[in-house]
Amino acid sequence: MVNLRIPGPTAVPPEVLQAGAAEMINHRGPEFAAMIKRTTEGVKTVYQTQNDVATLTASGTGAMEAAVVNLMAPGEPVLVITIGEFGDRFVKLVDAYGGRLTEQSYQPGQAADLNRIEDALKANPDIKLVFITHNETSTGVTNPILPELGKLVHRYEGTLVVDAISSLSSVPVKTDEWDLDVVLSGSQKGWMTAPGLAFVSVNQRAWEKIGKNPQPRFYFDLKRHTDSAATGQTPWTPAVSVWYQLDKAIEMMLAEGLENIFARHARAGQMVREGVRALGLELLADEGVESNTVTAIKVPEGVDGGKWLNVARDEFDTVFAGGQGSLRGKIVRFGHLGYMTDADLQDGLQALKASLDRVRQ
Amino acid sequence: MVNLRIPGPTAVPPEVLQAGAAEMINHRGPEFAAMIKRTTEGVKTVYQTQNDVATLTASGTGAMEAAVVNLMAPGEPVLVITIGEFGDRFVKLVDAYGGRLTEQSYQPGQAADLNRIEDALKANPDIKLVFITHNETSTGVTNPILPELGKLVHRYEGTLVVDAISSLSSVPVKTDEWDLDVVLSGSQKGWMTAPGLAFVSVNQRAWEKIGKNPQPRFYFDLKRHTDSAATGQTPWTPAVSVWYQLDKAIEMMLAEGLENIFARHARAGQMVREGVRALGLELLADEGVESNTVTAIKVPEGVDGGKWLNVARDEFDTVFAGGQGSLRGKIVRFGHLGYMTDADLQDGLQALKASLDRVRQ
Repeated sequence: MVNLRIPGPTAVPPEVLQAGAAEMINHRGPEFAAMIKRTTEGVKTVYQTQNDVATLTASGTGAMEAAVVNLMAPGEPVLVITIGEFGDRFVKLVDAYGGRLTEQSYQPGQAADLNRIEDALKANPDIKLVFITHNETSTGVTNPILPELGKLVHRYEGTLVVDAISSLSSVPVKTDEWDLDVVLSGSQKGWMTAPGLAFVSVNQRAWEKIGKNPQPRFYFDLKRHTDSAATGQTPWTPAVSVWYQLDKAIEMMLAEGLENIFARHARAGQMVREGVRALGLELLADEGVESNTVTAIKVPEGVDGGKWLNVARDEFDTVFAGGQGSLRGKIVRFGHLGYMTDADLQDGLQALKASLDRVRQ
Repeated sequence: MVNLRIPGPTAVPPEVLQAGAAEMINHRGPEFAAMIKRTTEGVKTVYQTQNDVATLTASGTGAMEAAVVNLMAPGEPVLVITIGEFGDRFVKLVDAYGGRLTEQSYQPGQAADLNRIEDALKANPDIKLVFITHNETSTGVTNPILPELGKLVHRYEGTLVVDAISSLSSVPVKTDEWDLDVVLSGSQKGWMTAPGLAFVSVNQRAWEKIGKNPQPRFYFDLKRHTDSAATGQTPWTPAVSVWYQLDKAIEMMLAEGLENIFARHARAGQMVREGVRALGLELLADEGVESNTVTAIKVPEGVDGGKWLNVARDEFDTVFAGGQGSLRGKIVRFGHLGYMTDADLQDGLQALKASLDRVRQ
């Protein structure tokens, strides 16, 4: 058995895989209507929100594109706060769709700083739309400022979009309590489901902005999705088998309970960090902002990072992820989210050590 | 067991469902690279093409949007030939993305006419982009003009986009022999796979147009998809479990052989049409252009079409589709594509009769 220790797609429980193998149904019939009602309620529970939530047949990047094309007008000034590869993806999306970009970027391993963000909003009073990544999968950092950021952006009359793709469902994201306007997540992370479905929550403030936005959109038009969902359907044919998986996985998540899920991920993060440090290895993330869903480990000097990954996979049946973009070859990423046991993580730590020893020989 | 006789999602073979229940893998690893190479080759075989083919994590409508945003510049004059609901979807997409639309529409049940299309191209010499539906799922009509249409559009220096979502993989679409520039299909039709993956083929003529097109695009940017596929990856996380299904389904399709698949669908179409006529019912499609993947049956006067569908489902375990848009309540659609046996179709015909008798009581 392969130990899949990447930060998504994550392992899917056997009962969820089997749920996904059920026969097809009419996506415009009563069974699907009952399912979309159930999953939408479940997703809202995990989101800790009463806002509308759209479920899209797409990757997480589709949810990011949906946020950009629904919220941002062509030529609109926006602030993108980026602490890594997935923040940079917002930069590319804003650029592709004609936004007037102010980019605030941080060094790999750093978290975003609330004061610097306020400075940017003060200096650019025409900015009314802000994008941020909650958990940066590429660097293993969780931005800790979400509880305050919504209020800050609203003080400057802005709307906040949060990419919580690799955090929400694993660590607390209090959408309503923190007044987060638009929040994104994706099925292949803590949701214990295969990739192919992505979620976008939208509050009243965001709907008002969306209603006035002339940016062209169709497949990812959020209003079409929530209007259809209200009638028990999707505007376009949904990924039915992935939806079956999601339905089962949400049932398991609600049975476990949100607080237990969050505690399990906090423990997993701590266990992996302690194990990594015990091997004499360094984390990329600054102290205090390490992610509880993925740990980025610096490749020690003199070690070939690509070879380390290959040896772990080929000789120790353990799949880690490498670095992306400028971090290629410089870090190894160890995923600890979704469906996992303590034994999976301990085995992962052993494989990390054994493969490193082998590469160093 | 429910007899799912809608024109998609279609029944998925048990071995394909089980293939989809395999454990997750690293979508940036060697197993996925081997799979995408295999499925891309398989899809190209079914497409009868040497052109590039992108596989998108999306519904068929995502493939339609991909065609529009990759090929059509804002403000560009285009011709959309529509013979029903899915042709109308191109109209809406062209409209959403700022095309200058010339719409040529036909009555429900009619096929498109090559002479009328040539007249439109003559009358609008600035039109260099044409959209057409091959098989109109909403009316049960297959446009028979594809073998000539590519050449016609090219004579007027245009590029042709063909929505073959509900035909390709069931009836012949000779992409290269007919010189079709861009051809779309979707996993949930004749491909015997769940919804969630969609295909777009692109030839050299289309790539040249795409290369010059300033229309914003990101998630559906076809160049990103084919460039990634060349390295064994997708640009964004793919719907891995649906992809497993596709991989298995293509293996089964190639084992059956394209000519056998086409013959099976031709026989299925004929069997259903004869059975429907034997019940004294009329088809919506004009004679000679009836689809071999879906049959649209006129609801007889005095019969409640919605009730007919409900009785078939609730009392005879058979799910047909109703009409869409202006055809709601006026037709019943009987799907006969993908994974099916003669017995499924005969049972479907019996259920059609029995439920009609019940409604007429």
